[in-house]
Amino acid sequence: MQIRHCRSDDYLNVSSVIKTWWNGRDMKLPRLFFEHFQNTSFIIENDAQEVIGFLIGFISQSQPNEAYIHFVGVHPEYRKKGLAQKLYDLFFLEVKMHDVHQVRCITSIINKQSIAFHTRIGFEIVNGDKEIEGIQVHSNHGGEGVDRVLFVKGLNEFE
Amino acid sequence: MQIRHCRSDDYLNVSSVIKTWWNGRDMKLPRLFFEHFQNTSFIIENDAQEVIGFLIGFISQSQPNEAYIHFVGVHPEYRKKGLAQKLYDLFFLEVKMHDVHQVRCITSIINKQSIAFHTRIGFEIVNGDKEIEGIQVHSNHGGEGVDRVLFVKGLNEFE
Repeated sequence: MQIRHCRSDDYLNVSSVIKTWWNGRDMKLPRLFFEHFQNTSFIIENDAQEVIGFLIGFISQSQPNEAYIHFVGVHPEYRKKGLAQKLYDLFFLEVKMHDVHQVRCITSIINKQSIAFHTRIGFEIVNGDKEIEGIQVHSNHGGEGVDRVLFVKGLNEFE
Repeated sequence: MQIRHCRSDDYLNVSSVIKTWWNGRDMKLPRLFFEHFQNTSFIIENDAQEVIGFLIGFISQSQPNEAYIHFVGVHPEYRKKGLAQKLYDLFFLEVKMHDVHQVRCITSIINKQSIAFHTRIGFEIVNGDKEIEGIQVHSNHGGEGVDRVLFVKGLNEFE
């Protein structure tokens, strides 16, 4: 198993596995992240050099002390082995070296697994304008009618 | 008419006009650009403060001397008035102040208008791996079976 920064030529591999890993859901991930955010994006490959996990993130250009994690995926057969946690930890280490103090990400209210995961690794849910099933939600955050759960995590430099 | 940097709260307005401006095509533009790339993204409003044009771009994080223009739109009733050109010029000025020497963007081979526009304002087409109707194209650039035309423009500091 190898973990490394992402490269432009990972794009085809990653975009082709997304449909399978998300049970056929057509998630769009534009190539630009693989071209321009390589230093804060990571790939995990198995010994056969197949992609088994990836994290796409960046440092906010307008708020340079913040970073954002956009897209994370782990091969279904390699789940529950701590790979996602490993990707997040590496991202935190990387962005801390660039004076980032907090990391943000978002998810859908239906994605209970993602909400549980982010809460477990230390993200807090940002208060929104309504509550659904006990969870604070931001209405229309992803466009008209598209509610989102927002997460934030402070980065402690001694962690 | 007013031109200004984009803000988070422009997202709903812009995402709601996109469908109309693109004749019903469902173009996805994630909110993250409006949150994290405000200083290199611009909005034009008319006197009634309606959005009539926008440009979403950023400085490449991995190649800091490059910038990328991701999404540009002009209200159909305000086309052919030089608004797109104005948005690009402002983007060039902004990124030059951050030592950017070249700007990249991409389009589809079917978008002849976009190809003509970019060529007119000084972009060059990057040589690809095949030619379609006399235009150099990069196969699978946007994913399996999705070919793209790539543009690059050098920024001259005395321009």
